[in-house]
Amino acid sequence: MLPPPPAAAVEEIAAFGRFAASRGWVPATAGNFSRRIDARHVAVTRSGVDKGAIGAADVATLALDAPIPAGISAEAPLHLARYRTDPAIGAVFHVHTVAATVLSRLDERAGAVRTEGYEMHKALAGYASHESVVEIPVFRNDQDTVALADEIEARLGRDARVPGFLLAGHGLYAWGANAAEARRHVEGLEFLLACHLEERRLRCTQH
Amino acid sequence: MLPPPPAAAVEEIAAFGRFAASRGWVPATAGNFSRRIDARHVAVTRSGVDKGAIGAADVATLALDAPIPAGISAEAPLHLARYRTDPAIGAVFHVHTVAATVLSRLDERAGAVRTEGYEMHKALAGYASHESVVEIPVFRNDQDTVALADEIEARLGRDARVPGFLLAGHGLYAWGANAAEARRHVEGLEFLLACHLEERRLRCTQH
Amino acid sequence: MLPPPPAAAVEEIAAFGRFAASRGWVPATAGNFSRRIDARHVAVTRSGVDKGAIGAADVATLALDAPIPAGISAEAPLHLARYRTDPAIGAVFHVHTVAATVLSRLDERAGAVRTEGYEMHKALAGYASHESVVEIPVFRNDQDTVALADEIEARLGRDARVPGFLLAGHGLYAWGANAAEARRHVEGLEFLLACHLEERRLRCTQH
Amino acid sequence: MLPPPPAAAVEEIAAFGRFAASRGWVPATAGNFSRRIDARHVAVTRSGVDKGAIGAADVATLALDAPIPAGISAEAPLHLARYRTDPAIGAVFHVHTVAATVLSRLDERAGAVRTEGYEMHKALAGYASHESVVEIPVFRNDQDTVALADEIEARLGRDARVPGFLLAGHGLYAWGANAAEARRHVEGLEFLLACHLEERRLRCTQH
Repeated sequence: MLPPPPAAAVEEIAAFGRFAASRGWVPATAGNFSRRIDARHVAVTRSGVDKGAIGAADVATLALDAPIPAGISAEAPLHLARYRTDPAIGAVFHVHTVAATVLSRLDERAGAVRTEGYEMHKALAGYASHESVVEIPVFRNDQDTVALADEIEARLGRDARVPGFLLAGHGLYAWGANAAEARRHVEGLEFLLACHLEERRLRCTQH
Repeated sequence: MLPPPPAAAVEEIAAFGRFAASRGWVPATAGNFSRRIDARHVAVTRSGVDKGAIGAADVATLALDAPIPAGISAEAPLHLARYRTDPAIGAVFHVHTVAATVLSRLDERAGAVRTEGYEMHKALAGYASHESVVEIPVFRNDQDTVALADEIEARLGRDARVPGFLLAGHGLYAWGANAAEARRHVEGLEFLLACHLEERRLRCTQH
Repeated sequence: MLPPPPAAAVEEIAAFGRFAASRGWVPATAGNFSRRIDARHVAVTRSGVDKGAIGAADVATLALDAPIPAGISAEAPLHLARYRTDPAIGAVFHVHTVAATVLSRLDERAGAVRTEGYEMHKALAGYASHESVVEIPVFRNDQDTVALADEIEARLGRDARVPGFLLAGHGLYAWGANAAEARRHVEGLEFLLACHLEERRLRCTQH
Repeated sequence: MLPPPPAAAVEEIAAFGRFAASRGWVPATAGNFSRRIDARHVAVTRSGVDKGAIGAADVATLALDAPIPAGISAEAPLHLARYRTDPAIGAVFHVHTVAATVLSRLDERAGAVRTEGYEMHKALAGYASHESVVEIPVFRNDQDTVALADEIEARLGRDARVPGFLLAGHGLYAWGANAAEARRHVEGLEFLLACHLEERRLRCTQH
């Protein structure tokens, strides 16, 4: 059995959880969060935990190359796959927001939610101007998260252009080099989705 | 007269009340909450109480098989009927949200709000996959809550598929084996209703 | 010059202000609140005050039958007129919400926002059932608040059926026998307006 | 190198940041704030800072007539230009809200978002009645903020009628004689934008 994760990693995860809960982004114990510990280990939230009140006992250490023990979030394979594919990733956060859930269903067939011309693009690492297009990939949802992780990694690869994706009818994943950047990417993508959803609503008024 | 409810039951009810108030789900002293004490007794909120600031004096002990005294929420019969029908129920929470109120009116004639394919279905006990349909029953509203309780129990029975229902133009009821599960069901159903309402709004943009 | 208002009246006003600010209902120092002191005096908020941080110096004592001194909210005449007309009124609260502002403009010509069949009607004193109609009066806005008060009182009278009204493009007024009831009426009316606005939005999807 | 800004200026900036963060108006470290120190100097937030948790190290002193050092918000030129053009300006706050972002894109070609008849107009310095029109200028967005500042100042001049403007797809700028007035203008303009956006949504239901 692996030792518990470092207190600093637990606190970074818990702090993001408190923030996400205050925004209503982790209803009904939904969502799961992880933080890289070293090249071969990550800290991941256990399943069924109130994400606004995470304590040390609610986060477990997992090895990137070992089977996942019981009691860990069923979506841990999606987290581990991201860390294995891209060694620069230091944190992965997954939340359930209304905008992410609704848009992921609307654009599942298109395969991406596409935004253009927003200043908020610059919140995403690698985007230096609003004169750009952001395509947030949308994947089908699947309870077999090992198979799903393979599908996702095959499309994203090591240098994903956008630091996040949507699962259809499910929610938003985002990551970063550390917890602060992963949070910035969650907030930036959620803001883009909220604006885009609002524009989709308004289309009915423009004709 | 019955002894006051145990402090732990009062605190579980008060904690849910603070959470619901912070979300704006119990406006104008609306909503009512209960917690099973033992096989024959439950703790229920009194009427007219600010649900964000519940104290010991705001919760009363009721017997499942005795008449309800004055000063208790007028909807106590709906709570008691649920506990009598299903001995596995440990807590019942009722809130007033905009999504629940509006959708319950739209779908009163249909008899249910129907959602399909959401990951959030898994927040409901008994749902193991998003590949499922959730039908949240909608009942007509009635000030005669004793008669209404009979009607509801006749439809729901001991093994209700969905751990909650809507009263038309009124709000959402949900329950669980304990306070934590009842809260998870309230949050999960409310999230589903919020997403579904958003999709109903967007239909006007899709043709 | 009149003595400052009793500390209890100031605290009731300040507590409502903190609540209203937490909901975003008093943006840009908007809104004004009052509390009856005795048959001939009321405590009223001064103008330009952050309503989320009201202190003793931000509330003044006014006589119901004397001219209003400088520095008091320009809408004080609307408050005083209500207290003069109806001796049972103990508190008057005015807030600016998006739903109240938008609906008051849409229904100014109709003269009222009309809701039917909501359980939340019962939050309003005098309504015992959801099987009822609530007509929230809408008045034109006017910077001459003395003239406006006359117009409002002529329509409302001593036994206003609904404990509140809207000013077109301006916001919601509500009152009650005391601060708790006035808050309950603000919250109940705002909830009704939020539901009704949502239903107006959805009409485009129903044809 | 210039001395750090006075503690009072830092605290005024940090207090606004906490407020804006609580409203969700500065997602993903977006937004930037400034406060005049004297006729020739201002305090400005550094780039990449969590605007809900600003400390002394996160605010720098800039001279109005000197080049901007590294690490300062890329939008500092827009702030400095406002202070240079209008000596009465004491604070400039910039936030990213959904309503501001969406409406600025819808009305970029029109050059302004236009509202009429709202009581909230009176939150803006110089507006004494709701019987007025407010035209919030909309400018195209540009990563060359020095060129953009020139364009903005050429249109606004020393006596801008409205104490704020929008950058298309970007967000809201507002200012005032001091931090309290700048905050009132941000809140007032955002409320007007939220109401106006709601009315644009409702147009589809009115035909």
